[in-house]
Amino acid sequence: MIEINLKENERIDDLEYAGLRIIQNITGFCFGIDSILLSDFAKEIKDNSEVMDIGTGTGIISILLSKKANTRKIYGIEIQEEVADMAKRSVKLNSLEDKISIINKNIKDIFEEFAPNTMDAIVTNPPYRKINTGAINDNIKKIISRHEIECNLEDIISISYKLLKSKGEFYMVHRAERIVDIFYLLRKYKLEPKKVRFVQAYVDKSPNLVLIKAIKDAGEELRIERPLIVYKEENKYSDEILEIYNKKH
Amino acid sequence: MIEINLKENERIDDLEYAGLRIIQNITGFCFGIDSILLSDFAKEIKDNSEVMDIGTGTGIISILLSKKANTRKIYGIEIQEEVADMAKRSVKLNSLEDKISIINKNIKDIFEEFAPNTMDAIVTNPPYRKINTGAINDNIKKIISRHEIECNLEDIISISYKLLKSKGEFYMVHRAERIVDIFYLLRKYKLEPKKVRFVQAYVDKSPNLVLIKAIKDAGEELRIERPLIVYKEENKYSDEILEIYNKKH
Repeated sequence: MIEINLKENERIDDLEYAGLRIIQNITGFCFGIDSILLSDFAKEIKDNSEVMDIGTGTGIISILLSKKANTRKIYGIEIQEEVADMAKRSVKLNSLEDKISIINKNIKDIFEEFAPNTMDAIVTNPPYRKINTGAINDNIKKIISRHEIECNLEDIISISYKLLKSKGEFYMVHRAERIVDIFYLLRKYKLEPKKVRFVQAYVDKSPNLVLIKAIKDAGEELRIERPLIVYKEENKYSDEILEIYNKKH
Repeated sequence: MIEINLKENERIDDLEYAGLRIIQNITGFCFGIDSILLSDFAKEIKDNSEVMDIGTGTGIISILLSKKANTRKIYGIEIQEEVADMAKRSVKLNSLEDKISIINKNIKDIFEEFAPNTMDAIVTNPPYRKINTGAINDNIKKIISRHEIECNLEDIISISYKLLKSKGEFYMVHRAERIVDIFYLLRKYKLEPKKVRFVQAYVDKSPNLVLIKAIKDAGEELRIERPLIVYKEENKYSDEILEIYNKKH
């Protein structure tokens, strides 16, 4: 049995996938369905890839992806020291130290440690809100996780371009209503969108999330997949969501 | 009874909306559901607007819009002389000469006749395909209607920006798979996308069309509407499509 110290307000949650568990701080930013969906959307990452998870938070995407894809190594970058420490303990909890390294660093300083044009793939669930939009939460950890305070979308996209090898893969989940910003910046920085999937709560609702795959220096040709519907009726997940959650239906 | 001369291969179709009819050349490019949907999507155009319909073709969008919105005047611009002549006869057929003027002109030459910053709104169903993509049809009228031969998306967007008044409205229907090009160019030319709606054949299919409303010089805030579903089951239109077609359901 692996011994892990839990700090105040932390608890261990079962991810109900491949025996994985994760530590979360119940007063901080807890992972949501967006991270689950992104780790599933990105599972087609090429075998033996070196992957960077920008803004890993609890480590949820790195941890799930280490089982969903055959990656060589995943580097989970997290700016907040306490959050990175918690993610490190989650990696240890799952005995994934050989597959995942959590690095406590501002993504803007990433080239102190990594050379440009070296990464095979990037996954990211970045802060969704522009500064000065939405309700500002009074918990600073949540603010940094939700708002573009430490880095904005353009930082993430421009740094991702620089980090990736030519033809490297970029996977992101974001709010659907940011698609103009997202597509404008991806094209500007030559990360060409190749696959897009919108996520809707119900078949007759507006999409609220978008999953995007882009390829560095690729040609212009986009495929839009059918929407991913979360609920087939109230409180009842769709068959596809149950599959992603690895539950029988 | 209005007397209209029909040329070879032309026929009159009933639009089943407000008594409107239209002339089409059965060997040429006939209007599709995209034009019907755009004229409905654009019906919120402000009262008393002067509107330009870029690439009007048969005149279908101008003719429907003249009844769906309270426009002052619609200018339908069409580069192909024969097609423009047919559209003019359709306008006459519906006694809409006071509401619609068909102008046979290349949109690139539009400033010979119209001053910049004067139009209240633009509607357009432009050619969807880039040159060298898709099957090239051997009928030259269809080629010009379908492919970006005489003008491409960037021409249409940049000219639209110049034609519109500040805060003027821009409505377009296009292939969903061109959204990266569309959003990139709209933002580049300061026609900010404000409302987007994808169109799917069925609830579980990928979107194939997209309806977009942009506003000149507006702030960055997008609303994505729930998808517009065309069929509820095989050969059976959805209630919303029946409503757009003005049929009881």
